Amino acid sequence: MTLHELFHPRSVALVGASANPLSGGYAYATHLVEDFQGELYLINPNVDEILGKKTYPSLSAVPGPIDYLISSIAADKILPLLPDCAKKKVRIIHFFTARMSETGRSEGKQLEQEITRRAKELEIRFLGPNCMGVYNPRVGLTYGYWFPPESGWVGGIFQSGGASTDFIHYGALRGLRFSQVVSYGNGADIDESDLLEHFAADPETRVIAIYIEGVKDGRKFIRALARAARSKPVVVLKGGKGVAGTRSVLSHTASMAGREEIWRSVLRQAKVSGVETLGELLDQVLAFSFLPEFTGRRTAIAGGGGGKSALSADIWEAAGFELPDLPPEMREKLKETASGVWDWIKNPVDLSILQDSPVLPEQLFGMMDENRVFDVFVFNLTEDDPIPGEMWRLWAGEQADGVIRFRDQSKKPVVAVIATGEVSEAEMKEWRWGMIGEVRKRFINARIPVFSSPERAARSAFQVSEYYRRRST
Amino acid sequence: MTLHELFHPRSVALVGASANPLSGGYAYATHLVEDFQGELYLINPNVDEILGKKTYPSLSAVPGPIDYLISSIAADKILPLLPDCAKKKVRIIHFFTARMSETGRSEGKQLEQEITRRAKELEIRFLGPNCMGVYNPRVGLTYGYWFPPESGWVGGIFQSGGASTDFIHYGALRGLRFSQVVSYGNGADIDESDLLEHFAADPETRVIAIYIEGVKDGRKFIRALARAARSKPVVVLKGGKGVAGTRSVLSHTASMAGREEIWRSVLRQAKVSGVETLGELLDQVLAFSFLPEFTGRRTAIAGGGGGKSALSADIWEAAGFELPDLPPEMREKLKETASGVWDWIKNPVDLSILQDSPVLPEQLFGMMDENRVFDVFVFNLTEDDPIPGEMWRLWAGEQADGVIRFRDQSKKPVVAVIATGEVSEAEMKEWRWGMIGEVRKRFINARIPVFSSPERAARSAFQVSEYYRRRST
Repeated sequence: MTLHELFHPRSVALVGASANPLSGGYAYATHLVEDFQGELYLINPNVDEILGKKTYPSLSAVPGPIDYLISSIAADKILPLLPDCAKKKVRIIHFFTARMSETGRSEGKQLEQEITRRAKELEIRFLGPNCMGVYNPRVGLTYGYWFPPESGWVGGIFQSGGASTDFIHYGALRGLRFSQVVSYGNGADIDESDLLEHFAADPETRVIAIYIEGVKDGRKFIRALARAARSKPVVVLKGGKGVAGTRSVLSHTASMAGREEIWRSVLRQAKVSGVETLGELLDQVLAFSFLPEFTGRRTAIAGGGGGKSALSADIWEAAGFELPDLPPEMREKLKETASGVWDWIKNPVDLSILQDSPVLPEQLFGMMDENRVFDVFVFNLTEDDPIPGEMWRLWAGEQADGVIRFRDQSKKPVVAVIATGEVSEAEMKEWRWGMIGEVRKRFINARIPVFSSPERAARSAFQVSEYYRRRST
Repeated sequence: MTLHELFHPRSVALVGASANPLSGGYAYATHLVEDFQGELYLINPNVDEILGKKTYPSLSAVPGPIDYLISSIAADKILPLLPDCAKKKVRIIHFFTARMSETGRSEGKQLEQEITRRAKELEIRFLGPNCMGVYNPRVGLTYGYWFPPESGWVGGIFQSGGASTDFIHYGALRGLRFSQVVSYGNGADIDESDLLEHFAADPETRVIAIYIEGVKDGRKFIRALARAARSKPVVVLKGGKGVAGTRSVLSHTASMAGREEIWRSVLRQAKVSGVETLGELLDQVLAFSFLPEFTGRRTAIAGGGGGKSALSADIWEAAGFELPDLPPEMREKLKETASGVWDWIKNPVDLSILQDSPVLPEQLFGMMDENRVFDVFVFNLTEDDPIPGEMWRLWAGEQADGVIRFRDQSKKPVVAVIATGEVSEAEMKEWRWGMIGEVRKRFINARIPVFSSPERAARSAFQVSEYYRRRST
């Protein structure tokens, strides 16, 4: 049975379903009752119903088959559960249950080994222990509050459940949607390599994101990673590189983190580039999701005043792009339409210079594209308000729509850089953050990647061009 | 007359006051009418009043003295204005007026030179041309919509007006308040070195932020920078380092950007560390503003689940901090209060392990501080919601309050890391961003610096410790 089938169950049982809102057994029950599209069985011998849904006292009392079982009971109750699972022909168990090898205690390690051995004998696959399980919006299997109900194209392999929920929440805000995200914790049975092979083959998945603390089998992992990267972009974040981080992952998922040099060589061999932070992981997956294939690095930048333009130019160049100046043919054209500033405009285009003239950013990008001098187009929004707020809001929206039209016509890689503000309750009342939110939303809906700063945008776009260069050689 | 006096005028005249909301003359009129606390004279020969305030047809018609004059008229009208200014004994002119040397055209350069020569003869100091002028909340002199009305401790020297308004808006959201911020544009008279000397001497200013595109007099600048850095922290962002950035600053403020190596050596000689982005400039100024003097690097981290803890540890170590493990005395203590997990807890402290136990982050930090093993304390907020949102919101608030109490008692450097979300209109309805906003606000009100990511926090805190180390040797 493939992982694809295991992750698309028609029936789910939750052992340890609970009415206590502080428990995991309550959270899973809530998500499943609200979202799961197949048959659902809540198991709890002590209460008759949870969240308005009838419960069953035991697995054997469940009338139908069970494809997928979520275990939210204490570690010491797992071994007795396994034969019952086998009797019900459960195909896969997700052990939310924790406190095993990650505690660092020998009894925890022994229990995990024993569970692994028994499950293998009984031919039951499992996720975890110590993990959040599978988020598959297509069947309504989910493990977090406020996960998007729509399915998408990003596959996620996360050794940490918390990192996975942050990835889903923050990714959703930026327009990402997910095929499946799997939190696999200690990975005693299904591991990072199995999951990589699954997502590499999964036709719904176009980009793979990985957060990994330790690799179980180095050779297997390098092979799986290299194979996956040949078929689709893979972005890898490794936790536990320094002294304290290594100590930390040991107590989190009992992973042996390995030395950083070894890790770098793994990525090099697999021709995959790693990222250092969760923010970069999101940025990179976003860039791969919304940018078309491109390899060129000649960049056109427009938007913002002079300071933003200069800083932007520095940052894009430092990231590996070039900013050729405007071609002579374009200057000649500008002489007619923007006679006051034609010789003054440069790349990056300081839009504040153009405020009195009739050249819109959309037209500028159009002219720049005509001469085939540019490969990538970057729009910087001015979040500042030299004119009263409501007027500026309209103008910013029009600029954004124009840039979106340009992308739709040219099909070129277009990147938007718009600050996100720094959320702080009182200030949310100010129109500016509303405007920023609105404009960001327009780009997100148009599937143009939006980054909160030029450095994040440039770094992410560079990796996309690198990936397609590597693939084309 | 010192810049301090020039920037604290008792009377201001605005030449080129306008009723057209798209013009600079309207924006300045609005700000002055709403905020300026001294005498205000709007000059416009064509209309009787603007924004309900009487106008004067010319400078000579103004009844009282004029300390400070804002010029929002076209470049070709400046030379005739200067003798009138001299007659009225105007002390300083701020030329919002642009289109001079920054256009790259010889007529623009000549005009700027001529204005500079004439002003000098007439003994009038000036800011600009091509700049936004002075924001001094203490006297209500301001140049942007929604600038904070309260005065503060951050001095800003900005060659770009747009960069300065972004700095003020985003800084205000993070709790920064300003003594004065000066946008000085082409800097034909008052330049970066003059401004540095002013802010170095200004008793209200505790931290200086600089955005600079080009230096007029290298030796003078290095001297001023080194002197300022000996008295208070100075953070420098340079625009125009690469090929296109250099071209860009030339067309923005007519600055000769200079080679990057030279710039680096300037900073080294002055013992000032530079930043590369506007985000870093804000982060760094925030860290200097809210952290006490410290030089130690032994760091205690608590908060978040295992993934966030591991990533955090990696990032703080890579930035130059150490994370010693918990001292044996503390483990003994934990044996009593958290018997289930005492041997499992590590530094960084994965708070999800402690959820069943009675040890709060506040108490943990307290125990860690008792043993004098740690110099810096980092709190990571879990923005995720393993339990229903409203309960989590309460819990997050309690955690924050506890961390604030710990800082109040210990007086140790405490840093909070809380994601900012990515503003996007529709999603603002979700409780999570409200919670994040609320918790951020608590820390900001308590003057604990909040950063949106561990990498930004660690980098900024490191520079603070570096600064005080340099100063103590």
